Order: sequence, then structure tokens, then C-alpha cells
Amino acid sequence: MDTAVVDELLTTTRAVRKRLDLERGVPDSVVMDCLRLAIQAPTGSNMQGWRWMVVKDPGKREALADLYRRAFYDYRDMMAAAMPDRAADPGAQRIRDSAEFLADNLHRVPIHVVPCILGRPGAMDNITGAGLYGSIVPAVWSFQLALRSRGLGSAYTTLHLTYENDAAEILEIPDSVTQVALIPVAYTQGTDFKPAPRRPIEKITYLDLWRRPFPPTS
Amino acid sequence: MDTAVVDELLTTTRAVRKRLDLERGVPDSVVMDCLRLAIQAPTGSNMQGWRWMVVKDPGKREALADLYRRAFYDYRDMMAAAMPDRAADPGAQRIRDSAEFLADNLHRVPIHVVPCILGRPGAMDNITGAGLYGSIVPAVWSFQLALRSRGLGSAYTTLHLTYENDAAEILEIPDSVTQVALIPVAYTQGTDFKPAPRRPIEKITYLDLWRRPFPPTS
Repeated sequence: MDTAVVDELLTTTRAVRKRLDLERGVPDSVVMDCLRLAIQAPTGSNMQGWRWMVVKDPGKREALADLYRRAFYDYRDMMAAAMPDRAADPGAQRIRDSAEFLADNLHRVPIHVVPCILGRPGAMDNITGAGLYGSIVPAVWSFQLALRSRGLGSAYTTLHLTYENDAAEILEIPDSVTQVALIPVAYTQGTDFKPAPRRPIEKITYLDLWRRPFPPTS
Repeated sequence: MDTAVVDELLTTTRAVRKRLDLERGVPDSVVMDCLRLAIQAPTGSNMQGWRWMVVKDPGKREALADLYRRAFYDYRDMMAAAMPDRAADPGAQRIRDSAEFLADNLHRVPIHVVPCILGRPGAMDNITGAGLYGSIVPAVWSFQLALRSRGLGSAYTTLHLTYENDAAEILEIPDSVTQVALIPVAYTQGTDFKPAPRRPIEKITYLDLWRRPFPPTS
């Protein structure tokens, strides 16, 4: 497999917020193609319990955006109080600006995708919902990778889940179903995305025991 | 971007169990390259709370495999009792055979990767841990995609989490850290993997309201 293409895909699929093209429509066929690729991801016990809500109706996008915005400003205030050092960090500030832009403009993003999974955390599976999320988040990320390969951008967001019940009412999602995220989808303004700055992998990878360096230092 | 390569990647990265090459070692550098790609995935608020445990020690792999096997046989019996129709389905039977093979041979897989995330579900984030898992599962899936592009295979498993505390003791993982999965990693026997059979995407995608068809039927 052409690893140059793979590596570019995996390193340049960023959370896109400010560079979403809010004026350009997204054809249904593009969304469907990317969802078709997405559901090739594995699910636990091959249950395929995923369901995909594509939200195009302006009134419903407005209503979801209202929930999102409310959760965003609550979260921002909470984080600022909890982590004042982080609030002063310029990198964090850039992300906050970008996140604020999305919160203020989410209703203008042409497509919202709400990935859902049948069941509620803790019902059928172990403890924390690890099995439930592990059975849909790979597909969601594949969806975002597929979008990227076709010139679209997206962002994985979970803020609206603070008001999951209200969102369920808006979309008529049954109580037995778990919403996993809200993915704004649009074409991007340009496609020249760069890899993200990251801590060196050697600092956060351990061999056999917590904090034991990998690769082993000789 | 070359969508043929992307589409092949996204449609042929399967959960590999029986076709893991148990005799061939995996160089540290390959694991590191794939982890380096993995952590280009986004995380909520760019927290990058991921930590990656690479387990190579035979005794520790044996101990993790023991926990996994115990959870597997409990889970299999529970599922057989809960869903007898499914137990008779040939497709489900094939997956069960493959899963049983992994349970019986996990200790022989040369590398176990246990992705971890700082924090516990429900502490900092909303409700169900959606934010927590959403901040690491994309990276785990990117890791698996990167492995695939280099001729390796893996499987996303969560069974050992039934005994997460025991696994934490084996690996000396602190209480404040959440284990997310256990990913067996090895070269594959051949690389000719096929797309998985799936329900048509049109049956599981809805427009604006639960169960409303998308694309809209005209």
C-alpha cells in the first residue's frame, strides 16, 4: 500500500472549524460515499449497531447549534476556572478561538452528522462503555478520513451531549439509542492542512510497565 | 489525495485474528512509526491525554491473555444464552471461531498495545465518557490503519477490561488512568484482505428524523 498517501491522510486530517466553507453545499452522494467507507470499520462482535443521522434541515441545525453553543460557553468558563495556566497558553488560545468560531457558526455548517449506536453504555457491555464507543468511534473517524480525502473537513465534537435528551427530541431519537458525537461537515477552504504539533511519541509510550521507556534506552 | 489508496485502506483494515503471524517478530521502529502517525488524530480540547503501553514481555502477555481468555468464555456463554438465533448464524459462527482462536493464542501474539488515557470516565467530561473515548479511539484506529499500510494486522478488543484492575496491576497503571482497549499486533499472513459484508448504508442512514430515509426517496 502507498504509505505516502496513508501517512498524509493520517497526519493532515485535522479538526476543521474556521476553514469550513459555509457557502458551498455538500452533495448527498459524497456523504453517502464517505459513510459507506466508514461502516467498513470493525465493530465489537460485528454487531454493526451504528445508525447515522444526517441533519440538513436549517431549523434542526439551528436547534442543535443552540444546544452546542450553550454547552460550549459553560465548558469554556469551567475550563478557564479549572486550568488557569492553560488559559494563558497561546496554543490553547488558538484552539479556543477556533472552537468559539464553530460554536457561533455551527448552524451555518451545511451538514451535521450525528452518529448513533443502538444501546446505552453499561447495558450489554463492560463497565464504562469502552465496548460501545469502541464499536462506533473507529467508523466515525473513518468517515472523517474519507471526507478529508475528498476535500471536505469535519470536527469530532461531543459538547452537545450535555443536552443529549434535548437533541434526541429534536431528531426523534429513541431513548434506547446513544448519540456519540456531532460532526459538522463541509468542504474546506483549501486543502493544505499540516500535521499537528505533538509531544514526541517517545515521551508517552511505555514498555511493559507504566513510565518505563520505549524503545528501551540502552 | 489518491482516493483509491484511501478507499483500499479504509475498506480492508479488518479485525485480524487467525491471520496474525505468530512466528514473526515486529521491530520496535515499526510500532513507533505507527504510534507517531496515530497521535496525529485529534483529541478533545487538544488535551493529548493518551499514553501507549507496548507489552512485549512474555510473562506479561501471558498474564493479560489469561484475563482476556477468562472474559472471552464468560462473554461467549452470556451471548449464546441472550441471542440464540445469532448463535446459529453461520457468519456469526465464523467470527466466533476467529475470536476463540485469538482468545486461545493471545499470549503468542508478539506485541500487545494497551492504549490508555489520563482520567476516568465521568470525571472531567460529560455524562457517559463520550468525550474521553472520543479523545483516544480515533488515534487507536489510526494506529491500526497505519499498521495495515505496513503489512501488519491488529484487532480492537475490550474484553480484558472486565478485569481492568488486574491488568492495571500487571502493568502498574495508576488508578487515575483508563485503559481503553487491548490491541494485539503482528505481521499478517498475506495482505489480501477484502471489504467486509455490510448492510446497505441506505438502510441505516436517516435524514433529520430517526428512520426517515436518506437520501430522500423521491
